[in-house]
This record gives sequence, structure tokens and C-alpha cells, in this order.
Amino acid sequence: MTLREQIQNKINTKTKPLGALGKLEEVALQIALIQETLTPVLEKPHIVVFAASHGIAGEGVSAYPSEVTFQMVLNFLNGGAAINVFTRQNGIELALVDAGVDHDFEPNKKLIDAKISHGTKSFLHQPAMTEEECHAAIEKGKQIVREIRNTGSNIIGFGEMGIGNTSSAAVIMSKLLQIPLADCVGKGTGVNPDQYRKKIDILHQAIANHSAVNTDPLQVLQTFGGFEIAMMCGAFLAAAEEKMALMVDGFIASAAFLCAFRINPSIKNFAVFCHQSEEKGHALLLEHLQVKALLNLDMRLGEGTGCAVAYPLLQSAVAFLNEMASFESAGVSDK
Amino acid sequence: MTLREQIQNKINTKTKPLGALGKLEEVALQIALIQETLTPVLEKPHIVVFAASHGIAGEGVSAYPSEVTFQMVLNFLNGGAAINVFTRQNGIELALVDAGVDHDFEPNKKLIDAKISHGTKSFLHQPAMTEEECHAAIEKGKQIVREIRNTGSNIIGFGEMGIGNTSSAAVIMSKLLQIPLADCVGKGTGVNPDQYRKKIDILHQAIANHSAVNTDPLQVLQTFGGFEIAMMCGAFLAAAEEKMALMVDGFIASAAFLCAFRINPSIKNFAVFCHQSEEKGHALLLEHLQVKALLNLDMRLGEGTGCAVAYPLLQSAVAFLNEMASFESAGVSDK
Repeated sequence: MTLREQIQNKINTKTKPLGALGKLEEVALQIALIQETLTPVLEKPHIVVFAASHGIAGEGVSAYPSEVTFQMVLNFLNGGAAINVFTRQNGIELALVDAGVDHDFEPNKKLIDAKISHGTKSFLHQPAMTEEECHAAIEKGKQIVREIRNTGSNIIGFGEMGIGNTSSAAVIMSKLLQIPLADCVGKGTGVNPDQYRKKIDILHQAIANHSAVNTDPLQVLQTFGGFEIAMMCGAFLAAAEEKMALMVDGFIASAAFLCAFRINPSIKNFAVFCHQSEEKGHALLLEHLQVKALLNLDMRLGEGTGCAVAYPLLQSAVAFLNEMASFESAGVSDK
Repeated sequence: MTLREQIQNKINTKTKPLGALGKLEEVALQIALIQETLTPVLEKPHIVVFAASHGIAGEGVSAYPSEVTFQMVLNFLNGGAAINVFTRQNGIELALVDAGVDHDFEPNKKLIDAKISHGTKSFLHQPAMTEEECHAAIEKGKQIVREIRNTGSNIIGFGEMGIGNTSSAAVIMSKLLQIPLADCVGKGTGVNPDQYRKKIDILHQAIANHSAVNTDPLQVLQTFGGFEIAMMCGAFLAAAEEKMALMVDGFIASAAFLCAFRINPSIKNFAVFCHQSEEKGHALLLEHLQVKALLNLDMRLGEGTGCAVAYPLLQSAVAFLNEMASFESAGVSDK
């Protein structure tokens, strides 16, 4: 028997009707395959939140002012944000990364300084970043993941904070999947109908202004991305290389995943899609990736919160595989 | 401001876009309202699994033999079933109840003896239980919940084990909601297409044989129910009276909830629907109750497993309400 067959057999002989644990069985199989074992263990779960400022936010695409990005980083450092609450609840280590926030933070051992610059340029008229910056961000993301891997962690999720980043993610999705922008743009943090129309107009204009950009993931990332998205792209690539289980959060994280997936499609084997965001483009993006998310709770917060609240389900998947009795061991009659 | 307005205001001023935690915000509001406080706490969570044997199982409506019911109770007692794994994982106290299993268990302090009889009669030709038995089961369910409440618990879920009980639940649903039986009958533990047709035929015949039974919940419960379903019905009623938060599991638990809801509609305010089962009738039953479940993981195991794996989401809801910073306290700019 192949390892896959052995794992599936172990799942099938547990004291339950065949398939009765639904998606938890798929996750158990996946994590066992990632770890190449019949007895997987989740070790030192981490969520890394990458924060960055976006030039495009200055064009009025967001409901919130751009300074909310650095203010929220301070909130993360003080433990008051949703991701702090959910990681504390579920025993997940939280790492915070300044990927390129437009603020000079005081040195803080809780904040990883990976600042590429004080924010991207507005991609309405120029590329968001230079080729060198994009490359540096991807490499930084890889490096951060490898350091976490070296602590013994084998499961990692990524979150983001960056006012304006649903705009980046929507354009990346539209370019890479070649689908109309309007299907990719949502309300973000909550723009009103007038702001929403403006957001779409600006992003249409931006795409038109960069008509030479094709579907190369690196070029798309450099032109329309954010530093947190590029860093997360690198982080996904490195985590899969390191054979870690990857937790994918919402819309922005999935756009970063899409870039990484276009660079290395095999990363999908390592990815658990944790939740489907209420942000408009996410359902379609997941559909294009041919995946289904574990949770659908109408959340649209980012920060990795979808990973954090879904993590206990991954623990359930691993736990049933390791701990449940089989029909034989429990003396229960099978069909 | 009313308490509801105060709670909603507290939710809305947390450092996140308005409504961005989706269903978690609804759950937070609901639990705060149940506990009549701005700072709810989940104390000593319990899941009670009611097990009972079903006469109808002898008619060949299930994929598994009837003795699996008592064998699974032994598996519960030995800690090897899915519900054992998930309650251990999530810090939930598990209570096991013999509601009417066709087996004489040795005395075991982990098993609550609430045996009404050694199983219901087959409702193909006669009522499943007498009026006295039905009443006794409901009262036992209430008593068990009150004893748990007295330990300081304020949140409780119910599970079941009983080969044949999707048949009971389907008929209860069909009778109480007055919808065609075929929309209510699923594959249960996994009948094949021939067995499925037989299951529907037998249940149609059973309904025809009890044509005098109307939509009175107690009469329906007595005629077509199981002891675990009747006991769970009483348990729901008592838990709501005691102002506990109720976790509703899958198809059978929801059928028991429906009976209780018809007796006292106000219990719905206390109920969190934890998961939508893959069992065919459940989606429609939830729709009729005008509720949406937190999880949809294609699970169809029963035992309260949907409650157990959803419980961390309830903890997340309460945690963000208590622990997240507000825009003001964190110094973050609001819109």
C-alpha cells in the first residue's frame, strides 16, 4: 500500500460511518501526507502578520485613512487586536512583521523589522515597487519562515494589515486569472457605494496605465502588489519547501497564495484554506484554485484571523486520526 | 440604551471594520444577551450524549446492525469515539446517558442510567413508546440538565447515538413541518440505494399506519421518536429555562430541537446551531427554523461532534467581545 492508502485505510477503520467526518477527514489525510506519517503532530503553530502601507490608499480606495496601518501595528504589539485574541485563545504563536509601513517604529522585540521602504508607490501611475524591492520582499518572507521552521514549528499561517490592500489583491487576481476587475473588487473595510464606484474606476485606470504588464506573477506583484503581499508570497513558497502545513487566510492572503502558486504549483498540496471571506472576490478566487475553505463565517477582517479561528479544526483532524479507536480495537460491528 | 444596544455598541467599537467578524459577532451578541451582561463567560461546557435503541432498526432501515448502539456506548466509556477525542481536545465535559439501550451495562460511574426501557418498539405498526414513557424521557432529560447546571455550567450541547434514529428524525421532521418524507430521509450511516428505497418505503408505511397522528409535538415524539430524542427534547427545554447557551448538533439533535421549539418557541433565543450535517434533511430543517449553522464540514456522525468541534468558535466570539481593544482605547482612527 502507498502511504496515502495506508492513511486512508486508517481513517476508514475508525469507529464512524465511512466519510462521516467530512472535511476533517480530508484535512487529516492532507496533513499526514505532508508529514509523511500515519501519526501527524502539529508543532508550535505560528501565524505571521505582515503589515505594509500602500501608495494606492492615497487615491481614496479605502474607507479608512492610511495611518490606520501603523496604528493597528501598535494595537497588535499591545495585544488588543482580533488576531491577538484568537492566537492567545488557540495557543498559536504570533509574529509581527513590518514589511513596509509608513511609520518609524521604536525598536520592539515583538516586531520583526523587515521594512522594504515606507510603503509602496501608488500603482495608479507607476509600479508599486521596483524589481529589487519585490525580490527583497519575497526573500525576506522566505527568511522569516525559515527562522520559524528552525524553532520546530511545522504549521504556519499568514495574515496581513495594510489599508488599501484589497485593491492590490483585486488587481492581482484580475490580472493573473484574466477575469473582469468588477468580479474581483469588493468593499474592503467598508466603502460606501460612491467610494466603491471610485475604487473600481481608479483600479481600471491603473490597469490601463500598465497595459504592458502580462500574467507573469512577479511582474504583476511588482506592479500592483504590496510589500506584505510580496513577503507573504515568499513565505508561502518557503513554508512549502520546508514541508510545513500552510494555513491560508482570506482574500489578500489568497491573492498572495495565487502569486506563489503560479511560481510553484506544488505548494497547493501543503495549503489548508481556512476560511472564505465575505470580501467579494474571494469565493471566485477559491473556485479558480479549485479549493473549498473550511469556514464560511462572513468574516472579512484579515490579520490571519480566519487561520486563527480555524486552527482548532486542524487540531480536531489530527486528533481523531491519532486518538479514535478502530472498529476492531473497540469491538464495534462494521457494516 | 437597551442591553442589546449596549452589546452591539461594544461590538461595533472594537478595532475592526464594522461587522468584519461576521457570524462571530452574532454569536457574541447572542451569548451576551443570554447571560444578560456585556462580559459573558463560558463556564464548564458540557456535552451530553443520549444513547438509545430503536425498534425501527429491526425493519432494516440502517446500514449498521442495532447492536452497534451498545457497542458504541462501550466505546464512549473507553474514550475511543470521535466525541471523546473532540471533547478532550476542547476542554468540554462529556456526560453519557443510557436513555434506553437494549443492553444491560455493568454499573459505571461514567454512564448515567436513565434507561426508560430496552429500546423503543418498532413504529411501523405501533407507537414507539407509551405516553408515560415519552413523558418520563422528557422529564429525565430535564433532570439531567438541571444537575449539570447545578455544577456551574452555563453552556451545554447534546449528542446522540442510536442506530435507526435518522428514521425517527426524518418522520418527526416530515410530520411537524408537513413536508414530504422524501425531502427528510437521507442515507443515515450510509445505506446503499436499495436500502435507501426500502427505508423510504417503510417510513411511508409507518406514517400511513399512524394516520391519526397530527402535528402535536408530544404525540409525534411518542409515536415516532426514540428515547434519546425525547430526552434531548426535555434537555433543550430545561437548558433554556435555566438560561444556558444551547449548542445544537446535527440532524437528529435538530429534530429533537424542533419538538422542543414547538412546545416552547422561546428556546430558539438560547440556541447556537453548530453545524449543518450532510444528512439530507438537515439543510431544509435549518431553513424551516430560519437559522444558519456555524459549520458546514460535510460531517454526519452525530454524537454531538458538531457541537464539540464548533465550540472553539463560541469561545472566539466571547473572547473578542471581552478582550479586543476599542478604536478609542487603542488610539486607532475610525472612519
